[in-house]
Amino acid sequence: MSTALNSLGAVQAARKLQRRELTAVQLVRACFARIEQRENTIHAWTALQKQAALDVAQVLDDGPLQGPLHGLPIGVKDLFDTVDLPTRYGSPIYERHRPGLDAAAVALCRGAGAIVVGKTVTTEFATYQAGPTRNPRNEAYTPGGSSSGSAAAVADDMVPFALGSQTAGSIIRPASYCGIVGFKPTFGAIPRAGVKSLAESLDTVGGFARSVPDVALFASVMMRDARMQNLSYDAKPRVGMCRTLQWRHAQAETKEAFAQAAATLSRAGAVVKEVPLPSQDCMLVQLHADIMAYEASQSLAYERLQHAGQLSPKIQAVLEAGAQITAEEHIRNLARAEESRARVNSWFDDYDVVLAPSAAGEAPFADLGTGDPQFSRPWTLFGLPCLNLPFATGPQGLPVGLQLIGQRYDDYRTLAIGAWIHEQLLAANAPDIGASDMWPRG
Amino acid sequence: MSTALNSLGAVQAARKLQRRELTAVQLVRACFARIEQRENTIHAWTALQKQAALDVAQVLDDGPLQGPLHGLPIGVKDLFDTVDLPTRYGSPIYERHRPGLDAAAVALCRGAGAIVVGKTVTTEFATYQAGPTRNPRNEAYTPGGSSSGSAAAVADDMVPFALGSQTAGSIIRPASYCGIVGFKPTFGAIPRAGVKSLAESLDTVGGFARSVPDVALFASVMMRDARMQNLSYDAKPRVGMCRTLQWRHAQAETKEAFAQAAATLSRAGAVVKEVPLPSQDCMLVQLHADIMAYEASQSLAYERLQHAGQLSPKIQAVLEAGAQITAEEHIRNLARAEESRARVNSWFDDYDVVLAPSAAGEAPFADLGTGDPQFSRPWTLFGLPCLNLPFATGPQGLPVGLQLIGQRYDDYRTLAIGAWIHEQLLAANAPDIGASDMWPRG
Repeated sequence: MSTALNSLGAVQAARKLQRRELTAVQLVRACFARIEQRENTIHAWTALQKQAALDVAQVLDDGPLQGPLHGLPIGVKDLFDTVDLPTRYGSPIYERHRPGLDAAAVALCRGAGAIVVGKTVTTEFATYQAGPTRNPRNEAYTPGGSSSGSAAAVADDMVPFALGSQTAGSIIRPASYCGIVGFKPTFGAIPRAGVKSLAESLDTVGGFARSVPDVALFASVMMRDARMQNLSYDAKPRVGMCRTLQWRHAQAETKEAFAQAAATLSRAGAVVKEVPLPSQDCMLVQLHADIMAYEASQSLAYERLQHAGQLSPKIQAVLEAGAQITAEEHIRNLARAEESRARVNSWFDDYDVVLAPSAAGEAPFADLGTGDPQFSRPWTLFGLPCLNLPFATGPQGLPVGLQLIGQRYDDYRTLAIGAWIHEQLLAANAPDIGASDMWPRG
Repeated sequence: MSTALNSLGAVQAARKLQRRELTAVQLVRACFARIEQRENTIHAWTALQKQAALDVAQVLDDGPLQGPLHGLPIGVKDLFDTVDLPTRYGSPIYERHRPGLDAAAVALCRGAGAIVVGKTVTTEFATYQAGPTRNPRNEAYTPGGSSSGSAAAVADDMVPFALGSQTAGSIIRPASYCGIVGFKPTFGAIPRAGVKSLAESLDTVGGFARSVPDVALFASVMMRDARMQNLSYDAKPRVGMCRTLQWRHAQAETKEAFAQAAATLSRAGAVVKEVPLPSQDCMLVQLHADIMAYEASQSLAYERLQHAGQLSPKIQAVLEAGAQITAEEHIRNLARAEESRARVNSWFDDYDVVLAPSAAGEAPFADLGTGDPQFSRPWTLFGLPCLNLPFATGPQGLPVGLQLIGQRYDDYRTLAIGAWIHEQLLAANAPDIGASDMWPRG
């Protein structure tokens, strides 16, 4: 199989770069060729730096191997501070903002040899006001949000990896809509320094790639866990199938993918069981939304109090709702979340991982916004590692994924089991829909 | 009693400002007169903006009341981003840094009418490399750190309130050394957006004032809890006296203050009991230091990887130690911390608040550094609200405080009980050492 360089997965490309069978300059050129061909259609980027990226690539090619990410081009969600590129957080308030430092996650990637080619579109402060990005599978549709540009750039083979962040469903949903792997690790596992704060008890840094091993390679660097560079899982996982209490909002394609996954994994030898849904959790989506609104109205106090006129009506509504919540209510909400978290943590006595919908279904039309994060809100609230696994297709021919949820701090095993599960799901689907073309397997 | 305007406590000054018996311009002028008189000795500030502060004061005087902090001048630790002042984080790396926005805590204070007069000295990235600030009680001694300038400025009557932050003991220790009230609320209670991240699971925003009601006035705004503007506590508190496992490092003056407090509160009607010390907790100080070092090496990845030559040997040692800790070890450390936290939380079934040493004793000489945070590390690790109450004096005539520790999220009651306890402690000490002059009671 001959693949254009820009379509190489991160692990494949890294291997060639480490062996000096591929130069960083070649790879950066190939990525920019793709970007130049497609950006007018996809609108994934807010800023690009071709010459600077080529210069860094040349230095890497001329010098010793710098780390596991040596020579890999990446995109950075424009919610992350960068020393060499404008950082606008998706808001006109920061039109000319130059933060003067790199976010820690960016610095860790660069320190391991990654090359930042540009900043990717985020919705306004990672909330709901959409940017211009379109879904690379079909431009009429949204790529999802808030990490819109990062998901689209990776799905369109512009870069093998891009940084994202999730406060509600901002990694898992766009990954599902765009048909790529998205990884939101355990809360706190990747440093947030230099990432614009939206809701402190929820904001989580993660990223996108086109396979589980690809995303794990970057996670290994940012989470300082070398095991992630060699995912291996030999046992048969115990998989809890969790419809969630939002099941009534799941579209047919999601329900079908869910049933199909249960059957496939069962056949492959996994222990597959339905997770009973505790009725106490029916308020979780609202609970997450309230906690997020309160904390956003605190974290974005400067923008809310000093630049209200430059905020979209969508975010103003969130911040106003949040500003109505008292500290006493918020503390009660946090206590409720903690109770639910403890209950869900006990599930992992019975299951190694849980599989649940990533989104209601295929991506909605772009002019309807970036979709609803409801299927991710509870897992983000619990701080659990989540991994979108794309393998199915909906009625419009757009991707549909499921998310794998692991135990807190069990990120390595979640990725290792995720790689195994993804392989089973893709293999089962490949003959029917040509998934091997749509979603390269690294 | 006639008091110079700059010596007015925040509550007193706010009352006069709200009644228009005092103008913001008068108060700002008085504060700057004090600063101009004393700054060459104290070195509390990294940047000052007299004219801008007077302009804001004039606007406030000419307009409607803006909020509970209307017209109150404040200092801001130079770890907090400010839109109108340089922000250097105590590091030469950021010599010409202008972050282009206000930290959320600053915005909340400004939104309620506070006037930022300048930025105060922080140690390097809030760790151990001391700045030039001296203890206003005696210039030969350190004010403590990392919030050195904020504590000194408040203690020296330059401003009635200053923002600080604590990751190990950076509020409580300087408050104790300088003889003022320092408040570190529950972890997460005040937004950290725009505050340079040191250790994500520990960094906590708080502040300094010269009385409990004064610090509570500012907390009420930043924590959105109006009850804090009227502290009242009618019952007799159950006070757990906690020597802590660092007791062997406590100096005679601290042991004396501890015994004196127990006797005073007992006489005043409180239920005073010794807290039994669980031997499992003997590793807590090291556990906190390890968690902090790991997270600092992650949060400060940009500075560590791109600007190592501009880091002091002290912080390099911390970051190198942290970089040796693996993710697996860190996760085990977090789990251990959580177990201890649960154990300590159960104490509050028996006590309303706990009283413990704030520091080993009086401030050390300035050339010995900013003192040891060991007496605060465990409480910060647990995320509990802590309040330094100054009332005693050591052999060098320098202040000695104890810290009051409350239950998680029980900040209002901690402040209310703290105000009552502080009153008892000051009243018992007043005849002997003239404490009413040293520590105005608001």
